[in-house]
Amino acid sequence: MSKERKRYILDEDQIPREWYNIQAEMPVKPLPALDPATKKPLHASDLFHLFAKELCEQEFNQTDPWIKIPEPVRDMYKFYRSTPLVRAYGLEKALGTSAHIYFKNESVSPMGSHKLNSAIPQAYYCKKEGVTNITTETGAGQWGASLAYAARLFGLEAAVYQVRVSYEQKPYRKSIMQTFGAQVTPSPSMSTRAGKDILTATPNHPGSLGTAISEAVELARTTPNCKYTLGSVLSHVSLHQTVIGLEAEKQMEMAGEYPDIVVACFGGGSNFSGIAFPFMRHNFTGERKTRFIAAEPASCPKLTRGRFIYDFGDEAGYTPLLPMFSLGHNFTPPNVHAGGLRYHGAGVIVSQLLKDGWMEAVDIEQLESFEAGLLFARTEGIIPAPESCHAIAATIREANRCKETGEEKVILFNLSGHGLIDMAAYDQYLSGSLTNFHVDDATIEKNIRQIEH
Amino acid sequence: MSKERKRYILDEDQIPREWYNIQAEMPVKPLPALDPATKKPLHASDLFHLFAKELCEQEFNQTDPWIKIPEPVRDMYKFYRSTPLVRAYGLEKALGTSAHIYFKNESVSPMGSHKLNSAIPQAYYCKKEGVTNITTETGAGQWGASLAYAARLFGLEAAVYQVRVSYEQKPYRKSIMQTFGAQVTPSPSMSTRAGKDILTATPNHPGSLGTAISEAVELARTTPNCKYTLGSVLSHVSLHQTVIGLEAEKQMEMAGEYPDIVVACFGGGSNFSGIAFPFMRHNFTGERKTRFIAAEPASCPKLTRGRFIYDFGDEAGYTPLLPMFSLGHNFTPPNVHAGGLRYHGAGVIVSQLLKDGWMEAVDIEQLESFEAGLLFARTEGIIPAPESCHAIAATIREANRCKETGEEKVILFNLSGHGLIDMAAYDQYLSGSLTNFHVDDATIEKNIRQIEH
Repeated sequence: MSKERKRYILDEDQIPREWYNIQAEMPVKPLPALDPATKKPLHASDLFHLFAKELCEQEFNQTDPWIKIPEPVRDMYKFYRSTPLVRAYGLEKALGTSAHIYFKNESVSPMGSHKLNSAIPQAYYCKKEGVTNITTETGAGQWGASLAYAARLFGLEAAVYQVRVSYEQKPYRKSIMQTFGAQVTPSPSMSTRAGKDILTATPNHPGSLGTAISEAVELARTTPNCKYTLGSVLSHVSLHQTVIGLEAEKQMEMAGEYPDIVVACFGGGSNFSGIAFPFMRHNFTGERKTRFIAAEPASCPKLTRGRFIYDFGDEAGYTPLLPMFSLGHNFTPPNVHAGGLRYHGAGVIVSQLLKDGWMEAVDIEQLESFEAGLLFARTEGIIPAPESCHAIAATIREANRCKETGEEKVILFNLSGHGLIDMAAYDQYLSGSLTNFHVDDATIEKNIRQIEH
Repeated sequence: MSKERKRYILDEDQIPREWYNIQAEMPVKPLPALDPATKKPLHASDLFHLFAKELCEQEFNQTDPWIKIPEPVRDMYKFYRSTPLVRAYGLEKALGTSAHIYFKNESVSPMGSHKLNSAIPQAYYCKKEGVTNITTETGAGQWGASLAYAARLFGLEAAVYQVRVSYEQKPYRKSIMQTFGAQVTPSPSMSTRAGKDILTATPNHPGSLGTAISEAVELARTTPNCKYTLGSVLSHVSLHQTVIGLEAEKQMEMAGEYPDIVVACFGGGSNFSGIAFPFMRHNFTGERKTRFIAAEPASCPKLTRGRFIYDFGDEAGYTPLLPMFSLGHNFTPPNVHAGGLRYHGAGVIVSQLLKDGWMEAVDIEQLESFEAGLLFARTEGIIPAPESCHAIAATIREANRCKETGEEKVILFNLSGHGLIDMAAYDQYLSGSLTNFHVDDATIEKNIRQIEH
């Protein structure tokens, strides 16, 4: 270990100057989003009322593979980027694997996760067009905390709807958002029509990202000079997150290796896209044959057991219809601690890539995820976010396969965030009170049928 | 901002290979520690029963200015070092100061603070001499978490006594220690003679570092093959922490500047020593005239209102007598959130340096510390530990002076840790329920008189 490097960090001038827009180079483009009323394809201008204009244009851009990172955004990236690429010698040794395991450590961001990579440009573009207020939803609170901070950086007011079960499981995240001056409301709430409808139909509803999105969208629609922002799922979010993979590509080069397998956890797709897309472009050209594995919770298995279908992005049906792998927008995921993965659907780009065989998906039970997270913590010293534990579990599965075959595969996973605000979950795991959750086929079928109907 | 660098990071081969032992170069050496029974000066071998031998030798080494960092320790430093040196442009702008403010960001350590810098070598030296179990005390839990992780790295069992008030204020820190497999007991406890004596004399005693040290020392003394470790105060701890300042010196050079003022918060002295000593050596030679400011809580003012005196390092009187600025070892600090600063005394080196005028001290009220911490969070995006807030407050005082005079002084402070586990304190500050604490002269006088007697 003493001869090889442990961490790879880029000089500031090597921080990417452009994001990679995979839409421009996908062999099969994603299907269009549809207007729910007319069923006609949407264009960027149809969303100008909801999102900042430049974000809408990025959302629909299928021509330019490289999009310039605005200089003020790149300057703010320098607060914490590049994040380190780390060789996980400790984990390799504990597993006794012949695989070379690397992780991209996005947990060193001041907000503790990769979410800041998109929060900064979203707040920037809103500010640039004169918006004063922004709204959003958040699950575990990683996105909400990042957006609250980004809003503060640009002098915007932020209102965040946090999924109720996460709001209660992780009270410190609410405090972090409030420290940056954001207003935080547990969702579903009685402050919106969508929230009222959900709470009257299902009292004590634990919330989900789908319900929180409905509330945040409604607030944006009914507030002057206010735009909505989203932390995952959408194509412009994936675009911003490619800064992760673009850095990782240069850092892997410093290490003299190239990944055979790239792994990330999967909620809506933001951190998976971010690390995977820049490498995937070399698969499109045939130059490389990297495998890309999305690790989703078995309790919310849209990629492994969902249907590719046109569905809403939110519970109330406020969003356009999106072509995606989905469990049905009215699916309420069990209360696993990986709050950031409790979402019924997958982004349109990732859905198309999965359909076309450019990537794979695996599902991970909650207990397997925490077992993996604990091993990682004890060998690498970083307590991973419950979401990231899924990527670690999938990595360990592959590393164990290498152990059997003796192959020296290079595995790169994204450590999307740390778990310091999620210690209650580790407490439960260590005390044996954590469980897995079963989702039966009938529930999924019923939800999907409602949509098809 | 776009033209100048924001963060300075060293290549792995520039991570220091030696620690700086200031004792060898101090114009006036510290007075010796004394055996409480005989009042005779102690030697390294007198402490072999309590600490690892190499640590005892470092403790008393007044001849070698440079001590080699063992290669396995340096390899583990590479897990997170170098930590970034950051130019705080955001804070400068908010203050409208002409000062150049830099901070050394020790919060990026996987355990969230600088404490790992000494936990790793302490666990290493214990392991090297065949020790199987180690004990320690912790306040806010930064040290305990670091030691728990370091123990795990070297396959040692760790038992940690955590100050009761911190154990209750910050439950996640206990969970972090347990995640790494450590046993954690709130102190004072009924598991030691020292704890029993304190709890029978003062029921509901909130604990302090002094009481927790007594318990950990007693456990080490009464357990086979077990050594005690300490996270601050002692000279070998300061030695290990100089990796901070040695890195910072190279990084300031990269920035083309040299600090006029170096600031750190002060509990027992570990992070202050770490950042200050490597710069202070250039003051000894007359080459530089940097000011060094230790920022202590007004509620525990040993440097600004204590007495230079021989005193015990712990409440029960188990330790040697140390020549130090002290409020009396039986002083119970008020329950401020900066648990790591709730200690009655200062390390012997720092005490001598303060006495001889090589450094200064200021006291900071709790509300001023959180006001400073909040401004820092909102401008630099990192939520600082309550301890570190004191350094920020002292930095802001100096920056505001520069604003008045127009001087472009270079201020460097140590961000010893992040406050993500301390969000309850920020909640209280934001809701207006946090207060200052007054310590009256009579209490200090009474404590000191007891010792003199």
